[in-house]
Amino acid sequence: MEVNYSNIKVIGFDADDTLWVNETYFREVEHEFAKLLSAYETENKIDQELFKMEMKNLEIYGYGIKGFVLSMVESAIDLSNGKIDNATISKILNLGKEMVLKPVEVIDGVEEVLKSLVDNYRLILLTKGDLLDQERKLEKSGLSKYFHHIEVLSDKKDENYKNLLDHLEIDVKNFLMIGNSLKSDVLPLINIGAQAIHIPFHTTWAHEMVKEEDANGSYKTVATIKEILQLIKTP
Amino acid sequence: MEVNYSNIKVIGFDADDTLWVNETYFREVEHEFAKLLSAYETENKIDQELFKMEMKNLEIYGYGIKGFVLSMVESAIDLSNGKIDNATISKILNLGKEMVLKPVEVIDGVEEVLKSLVDNYRLILLTKGDLLDQERKLEKSGLSKYFHHIEVLSDKKDENYKNLLDHLEIDVKNFLMIGNSLKSDVLPLINIGAQAIHIPFHTTWAHEMVKEEDANGSYKTVATIKEILQLIKTP
Repeated sequence: MEVNYSNIKVIGFDADDTLWVNETYFREVEHEFAKLLSAYETENKIDQELFKMEMKNLEIYGYGIKGFVLSMVESAIDLSNGKIDNATISKILNLGKEMVLKPVEVIDGVEEVLKSLVDNYRLILLTKGDLLDQERKLEKSGLSKYFHHIEVLSDKKDENYKNLLDHLEIDVKNFLMIGNSLKSDVLPLINIGAQAIHIPFHTTWAHEMVKEEDANGSYKTVATIKEILQLIKTP
Repeated sequence: MEVNYSNIKVIGFDADDTLWVNETYFREVEHEFAKLLSAYETENKIDQELFKMEMKNLEIYGYGIKGFVLSMVESAIDLSNGKIDNATISKILNLGKEMVLKPVEVIDGVEEVLKSLVDNYRLILLTKGDLLDQERKLEKSGLSKYFHHIEVLSDKKDENYKNLLDHLEIDVKNFLMIGNSLKSDVLPLINIGAQAIHIPFHTTWAHEMVKEEDANGSYKTVATIKEILQLIKTP
């Protein structure tokens, strides 16, 4: 099926794992967490239980590092049957602080793409997670100068996008979203009548995964962000 | 000094402790926290140490309940010299979850004021803290219909306001901010040339306190939100 981008005036970019590396750091910390609890369970079991805890707490804590750390602490108490020592809990808290303070690693080709598009399209950054973390990462990335508007959403469902585009007075027909998550950056846009380009990242959080059959809308998938320059017209 | 509001077109409202009760719940949880740690220190000492921990962590965690809970856990480990039991840490995590799920108590007179102003002014909500918490409180409050724009800021310093007003294309001369914190809702506005009305709340977080001499700008203080209807023209 041919997809046409000639109507596009505004391009939305996801941030984590689209502009800069993120999920990789969560996987590394999960691995560290499993090592800290290795006296109690296998890494596989610990991963599963931590993920269940995150899902149980998602409605209360939302997305982001702080909720993740709180879920690790709760999970450590559960997995150890209340026997985890204070020193290990302190280490878990420190893993979280280190995540917050990590340098930002901009993905290859991102700046080139933003530079090529900025004069002909209104570029907006649409991310979810923790407001302070996202602002900090944007600042560290040096990419904020390319964005006309930055919005941190508490979630990325159809209505969140719909409300935001209404508020910014952007017609869905003129809007293209680019991101690594089919569930958060692609399918909701197709659902509301906008367009989307999917750029898979090598690591996807289980919560962001969708079954193949949910994902057969009219969107393109590219391997790297640079390829979008072949799809979207630039003078 | 006479303050004149005839230029005002846009009115910003702070949320926590201006539209709804917030700080009271933090004080209650701090009291519960001190009870949990009463074997180790006096309530006064525990309060002081927790506040120091929050200030130490503020740059990393930012404002909001999750960072507060993480600081309580870290503080409990410190205050007990690494002897706090898992059951107490679980209780601390639960105190945080209960805070998130608290019903929203809209302050007396708020809805009447918003209703009187909404047809003649553009009302915007400017709050700081956790995005998800603030969205949830706004929804529970039933007040979102009065606001043209809602912005959760990571901080409320001069530049945060300046950047936001620029972005929303609001002239500082046309902007009035209303809130309970001199430090966050009043002084930055006076500094950038906008106006502000201060409505003190009976409880103020130590971090939001300013010395009297810092606070002698050209703003009015009213005792209750209803009094602003006597200051601002409504037809």
